[in-house]
Amino acid sequence: MYKIVFMRHGESTWNLENRFTGWTDVDLTEKGVNEAKTAGRLLREAGFTFDLAYTSVLKRAIRTLWLAMDEMDMMWLPVKNDWRLNERHYGALQGLDKGETAAKFGDEQVLVWRRSYDTPPPALEDNDPRTSFADPRYAGLDKGQIPLTECLKDTVARVMPAWDEEIAPAIRAGKKILISAHGNSLRAVIKMLDNISDTDIVGLNIPNGTPLVYELDENLKPIRHYYLGDQDAIAAAMAAVANQGKAK
Amino acid sequence: MYKIVFMRHGESTWNLENRFTGWTDVDLTEKGVNEAKTAGRLLREAGFTFDLAYTSVLKRAIRTLWLAMDEMDMMWLPVKNDWRLNERHYGALQGLDKGETAAKFGDEQVLVWRRSYDTPPPALEDNDPRTSFADPRYAGLDKGQIPLTECLKDTVARVMPAWDEEIAPAIRAGKKILISAHGNSLRAVIKMLDNISDTDIVGLNIPNGTPLVYELDENLKPIRHYYLGDQDAIAAAMAAVANQGKAK
Repeated sequence: MYKIVFMRHGESTWNLENRFTGWTDVDLTEKGVNEAKTAGRLLREAGFTFDLAYTSVLKRAIRTLWLAMDEMDMMWLPVKNDWRLNERHYGALQGLDKGETAAKFGDEQVLVWRRSYDTPPPALEDNDPRTSFADPRYAGLDKGQIPLTECLKDTVARVMPAWDEEIAPAIRAGKKILISAHGNSLRAVIKMLDNISDTDIVGLNIPNGTPLVYELDENLKPIRHYYLGDQDAIAAAMAAVANQGKAK
Repeated sequence: MYKIVFMRHGESTWNLENRFTGWTDVDLTEKGVNEAKTAGRLLREAGFTFDLAYTSVLKRAIRTLWLAMDEMDMMWLPVKNDWRLNERHYGALQGLDKGETAAKFGDEQVLVWRRSYDTPPPALEDNDPRTSFADPRYAGLDKGQIPLTECLKDTVARVMPAWDEEIAPAIRAGKKILISAHGNSLRAVIKMLDNISDTDIVGLNIPNGTPLVYELDENLKPIRHYYLGDQDAIAAAMAAVANQGKAK
C-alpha cells in the first residue's frame, strides 16, 4: 500500500573517533560520504522515487540526504528539516570517548546509558557550553523543549509528534517519503511501527547509510521491511554498531 | 529595516559551453562550485545569518545554495524550492549554442530573443523531448502552467506571485532570507523592487555566484543595494554576461 524509506546518516567523524555525539553537529567522514552516495545509488537502481524528504537539523543527516538526492538526480526534492528527528541527546557524555567512558564508569554503566530505555546519561549543566540554547537552529523552541540529556524514552516522546503530526499524514496523502535521520530517532519510529518492546528496541542496531524500506498497509502497519544492498555487509555493520560501547 | 540577499547560481556547464539553458537541468562547473563557495564565505565573513532560503527546482541554483549554506555552516537552514524561481524558459533555443544561433539568425535577432522584454524565442513543440511535461518535479502543475517558451515579461508574470504570496510576507514576518536563483528570475524581482522599466531591465546583468544585498524599508522599497566581494571582478563579470550572445 505505502512505502517509506529510512536512512541512518553515513559514518560521522565521531562515529570514527568512537565518541558520544548526540546533538553535536559533526560532519561525515569520507567513508560516510561514500555510504551516502551508495545509498542514493541503491535507491536509484531499485527505481525508487520520492515526493518529499525529512531530515534533522544536524549536518551528518542533512549531508547524507543531499548526497543521496544528488545521486538520485533528485536535488529538487522538497526537504523538511525537523529538530525532532535529531539524534538522542547524550547529555554530559557528548564529546567523550566511548571506550574511555567505559573504562572509567565500567562497561555495565555505559551499557545502561547507551541501552537502557529510561535511564538518561548525566545531564549537561544549564551553563555548559555544549548546550543548544544559543544555537539559532533551535531559536523557535521554548527553552524547556531543548534537552540537556535524553534516554531513548525521551527521544521517542519527541519523535512521535513529528511522526503523528507531519509524516504519517503525508504518507496517507500519498507522498512517497525518504527520511534521513539518526540511530535513535529511527529506533523511535521503528519501535512504534513494529510495536517493539522497551526492552527489545535497545538491541536494534541500524547500520549507517543503508536504505531501510518499510512497506505499510492502509493503517500504516508494516507488511514487511528490508535493507537495500549487500546483506552480509549490512549484518556486519549492525554487529559493529552493537560493539561500539565496549571498553578497548 | 529589512535585508534580503540574492545569488545567481555559479557558472554552469552550459554557461561555459555558451548554450541556451533555460529550464534544462545542467550542473555547475568546477568554477561555478568555487563561486558558490566564495559566495558563502563572503556572507559568513560579513556576518550574515538567515532564517530561510528559497531556490528554484533546478540543480545549478540548488547546488549553489547548498554550497553556500555549507560554507556558512548553516546546512540546517529551511529551504523552499519554488519552480516559479526557475530561469526563463528558452523555448526551442534550449540546448543550442549561443554563437551558432547568432551566426544563423544574426546577432540582432538573437539579441531580440535574449533581451526584448516581450518577444519570446520560438516555442518548443508540444511533443518535443525537451518539454518539462513528464518531469516529476512539475507533476503538481497544470499543463498550462508549464511553459514552452518565455519572454522576460512571461518570467516576471510567474515570478511575481512567488514574491507576493511567499517571499514578501516572510520578509514582513521578520525572516532573514537568502534566494538562490537565476539571471532572469532575479531580474524579475529586481525590476519590481527598483521599479525598472521594461526597456532598462534587459540591460541589467547579474554576475554568477555573487551575493547581492538589498536593504528594504518597511514598505519593502529598496534603500540601497550592493554586491559582496571584489568590486572590479564583479564589474568584469557583469560585462561578460552582456557579451554572451554575440557571434564569435
